[in-house]
Order: sequence, then C-alpha cells, then structure tokens
Amino acid sequence: MAPRSDVGGRVRPALRGLAPYDPAFSACRVNLSANENTHEVPAPVRDAVREALLATPLNRYPDPLANDLRDALAAWHGVGRSSLIVGNGGDEILYNLLLAFGGPGRTLVHCPPDFAEYENFAAITETACVDVWRDAEDFSVDADSLVDAARAADLVIVTSPNNPTGDLFDPALVRRLLDETGALVLVDEAYVEFAPEGSSLASWVAGDPRLMVLRTLSKAFALAGLRCGYLVADPAVVDVLTSIRQIYSVDVLAQAVAAASLACRDQIRGLVADIVAERARLAAGLARMVGVKVWPSAGNFVLVRMARAGVIRRRLRDERSILVRDFSYAPGLNDCLRLTVGAREEDDALLGALAELTRGES
Amino acid sequence: MAPRSDVGGRVRPALRGLAPYDPAFSACRVNLSANENTHEVPAPVRDAVREALLATPLNRYPDPLANDLRDALAAWHGVGRSSLIVGNGGDEILYNLLLAFGGPGRTLVHCPPDFAEYENFAAITETACVDVWRDAEDFSVDADSLVDAARAADLVIVTSPNNPTGDLFDPALVRRLLDETGALVLVDEAYVEFAPEGSSLASWVAGDPRLMVLRTLSKAFALAGLRCGYLVADPAVVDVLTSIRQIYSVDVLAQAVAAASLACRDQIRGLVADIVAERARLAAGLARMVGVKVWPSAGNFVLVRMARAGVIRRRLRDERSILVRDFSYAPGLNDCLRLTVGAREEDDALLGALAELTRGES
Repeated sequence: MAPRSDVGGRVRPALRGLAPYDPAFSACRVNLSANENTHEVPAPVRDAVREALLATPLNRYPDPLANDLRDALAAWHGVGRSSLIVGNGGDEILYNLLLAFGGPGRTLVHCPPDFAEYENFAAITETACVDVWRDAEDFSVDADSLVDAARAADLVIVTSPNNPTGDLFDPALVRRLLDETGALVLVDEAYVEFAPEGSSLASWVAGDPRLMVLRTLSKAFALAGLRCGYLVADPAVVDVLTSIRQIYSVDVLAQAVAAASLACRDQIRGLVADIVAERARLAAGLARMVGVKVWPSAGNFVLVRMARAGVIRRRLRDERSILVRDFSYAPGLNDCLRLTVGAREEDDALLGALAELTRGES
Repeated sequence: MAPRSDVGGRVRPALRGLAPYDPAFSACRVNLSANENTHEVPAPVRDAVREALLATPLNRYPDPLANDLRDALAAWHGVGRSSLIVGNGGDEILYNLLLAFGGPGRTLVHCPPDFAEYENFAAITETACVDVWRDAEDFSVDADSLVDAARAADLVIVTSPNNPTGDLFDPALVRRLLDETGALVLVDEAYVEFAPEGSSLASWVAGDPRLMVLRTLSKAFALAGLRCGYLVADPAVVDVLTSIRQIYSVDVLAQAVAAASLACRDQIRGLVADIVAERARLAAGLARMVGVKVWPSAGNFVLVRMARAGVIRRRLRDERSILVRDFSYAPGLNDCLRLTVGAREEDDALLGALAELTRGES
C-alpha cells in the first residue's frame, strides 16, 4: 500500500501517467482551432433555442434516455428509438463503447492520424490499440492492412470525414470490414454534414448489427458547448450502452436545445452549405500560397502543410491573435496545421496573415 | 468469439447483466420522488440564471475544467482552485473516483442502505464492494465494524446526510477512518445544505490528503436538471481525476448557470431555510398518523415506514397522482418510502392522501 499521504500514487497502475486530451486553447481574436462552427446561426434557429432555454425547468432530473430528442433523431435517420442513444457529446459514447466492448485483453484497431480521444479512451479502458497508419502523403488507408488487422480486433473505428486529414472513408472498405472480419465497426461521422449528400452510412446500420455510426450536434448544428452526440446502432448495442452509462449524463438544457435545433434543420442545411462554400474559398486561397500544401477536405476544416509550421502557428497566435491547431509535432502530420473554416472575415484574416508569415518564414 | 450477429454478447464479461439505476419515474401531478427542489426559486436567482442562459454562446467548446466556476466554488469553500474539480453531476465524480482508485483487486467499503450508484459504479469498474450494513431500526453505523472493514479497503464512501435514511454521519467516525486506516475517505454531502450549519467536513480536506468531500448543486440550488457536482479534495486527487475525465464533460450552460446561481447564494440560503422549515412541518404531520414511523432527517426528504408501503405507494401514484420513492422492497428498508420535502401545497396533498390511504390499508 502507498504511504498514507501519497494519494496520487494510489491510482491504479493502468491509469498512471495519462495526460488528458489537450485542446491547446488560448484566448485569441480569431479562433479557428477547434473545428467549431463560427458562422452566424440563422435567426429562426436562435429564436427556437432561446425559447427552449427559457421554457425548461432546471430543478428536475433529466429524462435519462432523452426520449423526446431520441425520437426526433431516430425519425430523422429513419430508425426506431431502440436503435439510437444520446450521449454527453460523442465523447461519452466513444468512452462507453470502449468500456463495454474493449477492456483488458481486447483490441481496438484504428487509422491514425485521427481523433486523439480514441487512443486516450483505449488507454483508460486498458484496451490494446493497433494502429494502421495512413499513407504519409495522401493519408489513404491500405485496405488489406486494415482488414488483416481488423480480423483480430474487437472494435474498429474509422472516421469519415477523418479529423484532421479531411478525407472520407471508403464505404467499400467498411463493407469489407463487415464482410471479412468479425469485429464491431464504428464509423465516426462527426463531420459528415459537411461532406457530399449521401456520405453517411447511418442507413446501413439496419442491415448489419455490427455497424455503428457516431454523430454529433457539435459541428454542423453549432452546439459544441452543449455536448450532444448520438449513436445509431443495433438495439443490442444500445441496450449495452444503456446499462453502463451514467443515467443523467445528458442534461435538460442539452436535450431541449438539441431538439429545438433539430426541428430547424432546414435552416441548418443552409448554414452548412455556407460553410462548404467558404471551405472552397479558403482552400483556394491557401492553394495560391507558395510552399503551402492543401489537402482536400470533406469537413469544416482544412489540413495544410508548410515549412516551419510550428513557428508560423505560434506567430499567428502571438502576433495576429489567430489560433489554429498545431499538428506539426504529431506523428504522421509533420509540419501540418489544421485550419477550421471560419466566417468569411475570419478566414480573410487568416489568409492575409498566413500569406505574410509564409513569405517571411520561407 | 461470439457469433457475428450476437453483438450484445460481446460486452465484456464483467459488465454483463448490469441494470442501470432506475429512478422509477412516472409522470404525476405531484412528484416527490427524486429529492428535487420544488420550492419556488427566488426571482433574483431566476433573473441571474436567465441572463446567464442568454449570454452564453453555444457554438464554442466548454472550458474543460470550468475554471471560472471552479474558482467561485473554491473561494466559497476557502480552498485553492487546485483542490476542487467540477463534474457532470456528482455521478461523474463518483464514477471517476472508482475508476481511478478502485478497479479489479481493489475494495470499496460503504454503509448501505445508501445511494445505489455506489454499488453500481463499483460493479462497472470491477471494484469489490464490502457492505457494512446499518442497524435495521435506527440506521446507525457500527463504528468498529466500519473501521475494521476500512482497514482493508482502498476507498470508503460515507454519506452525510445519508440518502435515503436522512441521518448525518458522525464526524468523529470520519476522524477514526482517517486516523486508524489507510483508505481514501469520500464523504458524500449531496444534501448537507439542509443539515445544521457546520455539518460539512469540507474544511477538513486541507488537513488530510485522504479526505474528499462531494457536493452538488442539484439539491439546494434546485439544479438537478443541469448536472453539476464538485469534489473538494487534495490537489493530487484532483490531478488524477483531471487525467482520466472526458475533458468537455461539463457543458457551457451548466458552467454559466451554476456560476450565476452560486453568486446568488444568499437567496439560496433563504430557499433552503424554507425547505428545512417545511421538512419539520411534513415530519410532524406524518408523525401524527397512526402506524407511520418517521425517522429524523437532515436532508430534503423524510424516510417513513408503514404497513403495506408498496401498496400505498402504488395507490398514491395511481389514484392520487402523487409519486414518492418506494424502498419497501429494498434490503434494510422493508416497508419504507422516501418522501421528498415539497412545496407546502404538495406536502399537504401528500399528507391528506397518506392519511386516507393508511387508514384504508391498516
């Protein structure tokens, strides 16, 4: 037993030395770091949200399973209530999936570089993690390598569009994973609303009990602060997650605001179209810069590579008060920065500053 | 490996067959089941909450550690920021404590009947659970038995006031647990605002790194729907919890509304005093009924025992649309019901209905 006063040393060995996910936030005039939606939310949506906020009593516990919201989401996706579960952000669902279907002696396969929380939650749940690295230049996934790794896996997570590389995951490869392996397959579609129509695989879930699709209201619906994600999955998976979740994890305001926003999804579709158009403008502006490589993106962000990216990122922050995400140090992402698609004036500020700084640093 | 289609069977063995905590909710005219605060929140608090709701952008991720709220809570308790962590309800903190300091091969000691989530989270984290049962009649805890059990424990949870029995935990016994055992000791003070001044042990934390005090804004602050709990603990414990939590677990509205409510705590003190007075009135009314045993309570609820309690609870619900919590089936709580202290008119409805039903059923 640890000395009486060494309380930190009492943490169980498997959890020692974990570092929490670091969003690397600092307060800046222009924040294009976290793939938040900074476009103006249409007035009807704002009004509906305000009404929901003011009409919701705070003194009563939430409906544990958020059934009103759940029904609205299920109807949107054309599935039954029993095929959908809501979480305190996608994070809760990712964690609970690894808790339930991972654990000691079990294996997660994923394709880095991707969302850092997969590895983090695998570590916390003591799930072994097998990395099938993407191509260093075009970020493609080697299909045979992934299928081979997945044969021995309990859970495979693929991300479509992938964060931070921006590419869609090939649906044919999802099909192979389901047909040629016995693993559970999670497709993380946090950014799919920014991809071309028809990119989501949510409609496949009904046909395969091992497929799960994770969605969020953080991005397209501009509700990152509210924490509302959901999973479309086989009812047996939903039952398992229901049995291990913290029952009041999704608060009353998240439930009410999410439902109100969802009812306005025609306006949200317009908001998303604006961001997609702005993404093209931002990418074109970046592509015109000498020495800047731009990857195509189906998300609300663009990944770029440039010499001295870490220095440029710091100068953007410190000299221009513009925050972007630094991946220049990250394995597989040497000299890369991830730029959230902002509002037009934010992107203009970024483009102007980058043009000057890349000239200065080159 | 399970058959390809048996996805529910893929849950890891330790997590099979868990049932989620069941709040046994049904929609009723009068809901005195969940120890919610049903008294009218003073207008200045309502105004401050409304202002916070409307001023908070939803599109940005939350401050991971809720530092503004954390500072306000820390100042209130006279501790530094590093000694306090905020969670998505007390549930998140309870779970994370068991995850960090429990786990396979480790032991939690607690004193049932108490809050059902302790055992539930112990099961999910594969922490062994040792029950030191309270006396069947007066719910007292045998001090020597608890200290003996705690000597072999990693974590002890005591609840003060205890839910559902209502009694305060003896501070001298907390002292013994700290002095005579090497365990971490959590005092769950979810209801302590309804107890006499000076009942909290939060001020002891500075003197003992193994003591932790859990609090919530769900009860006294009438914010059960918002999910905001916090722990006062040694900075080393806070660091451990920080390293394993989901970083955005506390959403922007919870942070903003909690801070606004906390700034109104003089008004909240008045609200709590009203509930304490109403508790005395409710208990006196119950004590006048023949065949109803009433235990003293330091929480915002009263535990009672009566013949055929389960039947009476059902008749309250079905014939009077009054919901109370049924513990009549629960070990150690034979024929007991837990009655939340409601508003005066709610309690009058309950008292009237109970008087009639106990006469009818006796």
